[in-house]
Amino acid sequence: MSDTPLAVDLERLQRDVDGLASVGRGDSHAIYRTAFSDGDMAGRDWLKARMDEAGLLFRTDGAANLFGLLGEDKSGPCVLTGSHIDTIPGAGHLDGALGVLCALESLRVLRERKVELQRPVEMVAFSDEEGRFGGMFGSQAFSGLLTPGMILEAADSDGVRLADAMAERGLNAMDALRAPRAPGSIHAFVELHIEQGPVLDRAGVSIGVVEAITGLFRWEVTLTGAANHAGTTPMNLRQDAFQGLAEFAGQIDRVLEEQGGPRSVATIGHVVLSPGAANVVPGEARFTLEVRDTDADVLDALGHALRRTLSAIARRRGLMFEFSVVSEISPVPCDGGVIAAIQESADALSLETLRLPSGAAHDTQMVSRVAPAGMIFVPSREGRSHSPAEWTAWDDIEKGANVLLNTLYRLAG
Amino acid sequence: MSDTPLAVDLERLQRDVDGLASVGRGDSHAIYRTAFSDGDMAGRDWLKARMDEAGLLFRTDGAANLFGLLGEDKSGPCVLTGSHIDTIPGAGHLDGALGVLCALESLRVLRERKVELQRPVEMVAFSDEEGRFGGMFGSQAFSGLLTPGMILEAADSDGVRLADAMAERGLNAMDALRAPRAPGSIHAFVELHIEQGPVLDRAGVSIGVVEAITGLFRWEVTLTGAANHAGTTPMNLRQDAFQGLAEFAGQIDRVLEEQGGPRSVATIGHVVLSPGAANVVPGEARFTLEVRDTDADVLDALGHALRRTLSAIARRRGLMFEFSVVSEISPVPCDGGVIAAIQESADALSLETLRLPSGAAHDTQMVSRVAPAGMIFVPSREGRSHSPAEWTAWDDIEKGANVLLNTLYRLAG
Repeated sequence: MSDTPLAVDLERLQRDVDGLASVGRGDSHAIYRTAFSDGDMAGRDWLKARMDEAGLLFRTDGAANLFGLLGEDKSGPCVLTGSHIDTIPGAGHLDGALGVLCALESLRVLRERKVELQRPVEMVAFSDEEGRFGGMFGSQAFSGLLTPGMILEAADSDGVRLADAMAERGLNAMDALRAPRAPGSIHAFVELHIEQGPVLDRAGVSIGVVEAITGLFRWEVTLTGAANHAGTTPMNLRQDAFQGLAEFAGQIDRVLEEQGGPRSVATIGHVVLSPGAANVVPGEARFTLEVRDTDADVLDALGHALRRTLSAIARRRGLMFEFSVVSEISPVPCDGGVIAAIQESADALSLETLRLPSGAAHDTQMVSRVAPAGMIFVPSREGRSHSPAEWTAWDDIEKGANVLLNTLYRLAG
Repeated sequence: MSDTPLAVDLERLQRDVDGLASVGRGDSHAIYRTAFSDGDMAGRDWLKARMDEAGLLFRTDGAANLFGLLGEDKSGPCVLTGSHIDTIPGAGHLDGALGVLCALESLRVLRERKVELQRPVEMVAFSDEEGRFGGMFGSQAFSGLLTPGMILEAADSDGVRLADAMAERGLNAMDALRAPRAPGSIHAFVELHIEQGPVLDRAGVSIGVVEAITGLFRWEVTLTGAANHAGTTPMNLRQDAFQGLAEFAGQIDRVLEEQGGPRSVATIGHVVLSPGAANVVPGEARFTLEVRDTDADVLDALGHALRRTLSAIARRRGLMFEFSVVSEISPVPCDGGVIAAIQESADALSLETLRLPSGAAHDTQMVSRVAPAGMIFVPSREGRSHSPAEWTAWDDIEKGANVLLNTLYRLAG
């Protein structure tokens, strides 16, 4: 390994970012490349053309994941990098795309500079990360986590089945069952992504080293009291379901402080009161509670404590409470070796870093089941994401791309 | 005045209650006599026939209020009693109807027993108390509180104008402007009504003596923070509009204790969060706040204190807040003389009473603008109202009717 860090060609990377941003673009710069839509298919063609130009060996797998290989003459496990180019409807230009284009630029530099590598290096764009058909279809297929039932049942919000959407593009969805890579064939996986949160932007730090991807649980809770006339029911004779919810909401910070870690978050994002009239004491309050942390034990402890808190409030106020677990996702720690490679690369570039969790889900979450994996974050201005207003300064993008490039070199060199 | 209290004929009153309950009845005993509907018109015909049978002098006014007079040979201000027979859609059998039927039974007894009276006694059924066209149309007209604009603009929730609904029944809505009685022509007004709240039922007391009808203010409040990804936004970087609302809701009891009276109530009955997704920190919380009390100064103090509380919470949490006053109704004290007549009548019958406010609006609120007025409450089982499940024990009804009868006798005798 050379002592001088490698560097990407920012202008070329900028052309790629602008180029891919123009594929599937609608009004007001919003981007429409939902999985297997016309926009997504055009993006795939665009990307294949760039990989061909870059001299990478293009291939695709049964889940329509797109790969570009550098060092096909080498044997042994490869170093893989990438993200996704599909988008939510009305997306910004960086979510997913930036990680794929920084991967492309990194492989181009490694090839042009004829850097000596011990291992093959490969880039990937995973299919349907954003979830038109459920989310992380490509990385789940790649990691061997799909079943035939999951594939057959997958459908979008308009009822279009994944199998039909893929068939329309000449693809067989069941081929996704043949997508898993052989065990041990991936030496390491690195994904660069925008943070989608405000932490790096607020701290003024360009590089985030992700330590773990948070797990979560999501409950739907119903508190039931008695709907009564708001004028004729004295305060002490009420069973006000909303007041129960408000008291619970006021306890969340305490529970996080007592049972949570420094990264624990809890959110009540949706509330419906019944009957919902200004002059009726709410007889029912339905709400969502979502809790995230990077530590499974902390999540467990938070779940227990929040249930006890709810139960005590309900008992004291004469309310009934029931809750159902809507979803539960385990946290995923990033690989220590990959974290170290990222950190060393940033240090060699004299870049300040911040260790942080990923609060959002990413393909890395799936790939980490079968390979050592890690993530590099770059700042999202004001934490904005999933919006055409999402933005990362070019200077930060250049720094992030350089960290990715040197991390790949460290892992493969 | 005789020393032995007068007594109603409970069986006859029961027949009337059951008889009127069968007019406009739909499925599951729910009653449909919204103002000027077929059910209401049938109820009016039924009531006129009963007044004719009872030997009362029937008449109607420009607002289609129905009157039955006893003692037409007497001059001077009359003692008026009654309520309304219109209902909400899907009502119970007692709200309004019981007050009209107890008035009818009282006048029948006074006439049959040839009780000597100093003043004429009159019963009334006011039009559209429940508000198909806004509420208390008849008693407002009677009290001279309507304007031509109010009449012309009045329409139901389907857009049917009051003027058209009345024209269909051969009535001219603008005649309501000729409904006001001459100043000084009402010596006193007494309305018997079910409590529509749980206070008498919980206390096991049959007679409520209403001291005042509560006033209220209703606000629509918007707290605005920032909508952010619930996974990627740490707790300390959030401007969670719902947490602001929850904190405010938790302060309501304190504000009522510090600034309110023993009867003050405050209700948050409707809440809408935006964007309202489980995985997004709420950027906006819109909610209603309704506060009632019988004392205008207390209402003022509560309004100021609640505004200060909201403002402090918003400032500390980095939220914006705006509110609009949706409605404001002044409290109405009941007349001391009428209260005393009710109390003395109950005492003479050895009936326990409870002084309480009316938290709901009633025709008395309007009539009290032009005449000394008061109300008698009978218990609502479990506080149920505006529902086919509304219920008052016959024993309580008999007691209430006897108090009304003797109160009228006291006021007119």
